Amino acid sequence: MTWSSPEPILVEALRGEMVESHHCGAYAVVDAAGRVVLAQGDVEHPVYARSAIKPLQALPLVETGAAEHYRLGVKEIALACASHNGTPAVVAAVEAWLNGIGLAPDDLECGADAPIEQAAAQALVRARQSPSPLHNNCSGKHAGFLSTARYRGESTRGYIDAGHPAQRRVLAALSSMTGLDLERAPHGTDGCGIPVVGIPLKAMARAMARLADPAGLAAERAAAARRILDAMAAEFLIVAGTSRFTREVMRVGAATVRLKPGAEGVSCAALPQHGLGVALKISDGAGRAADVAMGAILVRLGMLDPAQAAALEGVLRPPIKNIAGHVVGELRPVPAAFR
Amino acid sequence: MTWSSPEPILVEALRGEMVESHHCGAYAVVDAAGRVVLAQGDVEHPVYARSAIKPLQALPLVETGAAEHYRLGVKEIALACASHNGTPAVVAAVEAWLNGIGLAPDDLECGADAPIEQAAAQALVRARQSPSPLHNNCSGKHAGFLSTARYRGESTRGYIDAGHPAQRRVLAALSSMTGLDLERAPHGTDGCGIPVVGIPLKAMARAMARLADPAGLAAERAAAARRILDAMAAEFLIVAGTSRFTREVMRVGAATVRLKPGAEGVSCAALPQHGLGVALKISDGAGRAADVAMGAILVRLGMLDPAQAAALEGVLRPPIKNIAGHVVGELRPVPAAFR
Repeated sequence: MTWSSPEPILVEALRGEMVESHHCGAYAVVDAAGRVVLAQGDVEHPVYARSAIKPLQALPLVETGAAEHYRLGVKEIALACASHNGTPAVVAAVEAWLNGIGLAPDDLECGADAPIEQAAAQALVRARQSPSPLHNNCSGKHAGFLSTARYRGESTRGYIDAGHPAQRRVLAALSSMTGLDLERAPHGTDGCGIPVVGIPLKAMARAMARLADPAGLAAERAAAARRILDAMAAEFLIVAGTSRFTREVMRVGAATVRLKPGAEGVSCAALPQHGLGVALKISDGAGRAADVAMGAILVRLGMLDPAQAAALEGVLRPPIKNIAGHVVGELRPVPAAFR
Repeated sequence: MTWSSPEPILVEALRGEMVESHHCGAYAVVDAAGRVVLAQGDVEHPVYARSAIKPLQALPLVETGAAEHYRLGVKEIALACASHNGTPAVVAAVEAWLNGIGLAPDDLECGADAPIEQAAAQALVRARQSPSPLHNNCSGKHAGFLSTARYRGESTRGYIDAGHPAQRRVLAALSSMTGLDLERAPHGTDGCGIPVVGIPLKAMARAMARLADPAGLAAERAAAARRILDAMAAEFLIVAGTSRFTREVMRVGAATVRLKPGAEGVSCAALPQHGLGVALKISDGAGRAADVAMGAILVRLGMLDPAQAAALEGVLRPPIKNIAGHVVGELRPVPAAFR
């Protein structure tokens, strides 16, 4: 006996006359009260949110008062929410932030990784320099964890461990925002070493909706939510890193959309003008499909007007090109999955 | 109304306590007479074989007499079947081959692409050199097409077009080996610019079985099939390129397995000692899952004895590591899909 995927096909990869590959997945669009506005697939099944919930993981940085104490600006808050591109400007900003809290790049426990931007990675290669933890696309998020630990006078060593107060604060914020007790949720380790917990898409979307519509939150958290979403809009280039989809959608739809994709085909959005949150997971983990599915949801919800959708055609239905640069296919949403 | 994937789950990605992602797909194991020995999913649905059928695409190179005429050796035949790594040695071999037929790198129409081996790509960056078409992992296959065109006195320009005699010969060989008229099969363009045609996995596996068990083929084609499979075994490092799975399986199981993966989650094998062919497609196009599924099929068929399977544990169930290098999960076959 074998099992098929329980999830519907959301995205197809067309090549020439034929669909070559397809991607199944599930998504939920939810308001701050937890009402499901739109959904496909099993939205109760736990999913690791990976980097798609960096905006939620940044809540303690602001609401502990650490951000205020260390005079962190829009740029640092955006870096905490970013999968940054590892360019010299970004690396310098994270290093300056660490210096400002009395720490150094060696205190980062995210692991050294090459910049995800190709030109920045190649510049390092040409200079015969090894990547440092600063280049890791998560170094801003980690600087945020270190900031709360320093501010609270905690040991910074081991700040990535599930038992460290920095991660306890993140888990408490996630539990509160999702409305779930995540203490016993299935867990694992993220690419950057911090804990990941399984969260149903419906609850993940609700947490994003509460960021988008924080009126029902305690005053400090509501202020933190607003500050985080404002920073994401103001510094969307930092947040997006090398994700062309994320960058272009936030450029064109900045007033209505705060977007953050994560590894393994997860993507989340907060829609402040409508008080909605979106969470989606492509079952096979493909980021190319997560982008296309998120685009289709935003169009379906009316977050992008026809002119905006037209301007974004190249990322909503991205062409597939061959090595010589000719268009030989496209990624496209399956219309029936977004009605 | 929405549609789920019709294919069974073949491979899971585990992270910590939970399956994070899964991959659906289909496969067929077939003998030279077309009898299905083992199968899962829809094996009648057309699939683009991409680079997984390079050994079949190399048939005209040998059976036209071009390989003999230009005194091509084991290395060149292996290059024609390879997704090579673009290292200096391989690039020099393709360039020498082109020189030997009176052509130059500029005659390649596959497009310039960076070497897929990281060290080779970084060496180019350090030397401030742009990649050339020689570095394209398909340049050996293209040198093969150019060789048949030169040998037959055809124009070499446009040798990647579906109407060029070089591609007509490939399509004729594929039709004959699959037992299908592929003239009206759904078609498109491969990453390297040549035509791709949709072939059901069952027919693709049969074509691989005929390579493995060529007794029923015309003498010239049978000789070509043996020469191609021998070259793949002798120069498996060239064929495998940077695919650790392909390299290790052919290293350990060289006597029994000839393996070639392709883009978008396709993989093919010829099993000469057993006269079988294998073709598989991961529905979402993930190569990581194609490797794991192919490994499970080879174990199921007894192609790898327990000692060999133990030696290959690291590629049959590859660990998932975080950036710091710690194991945080694994890719694994779903046992029920390989019974």
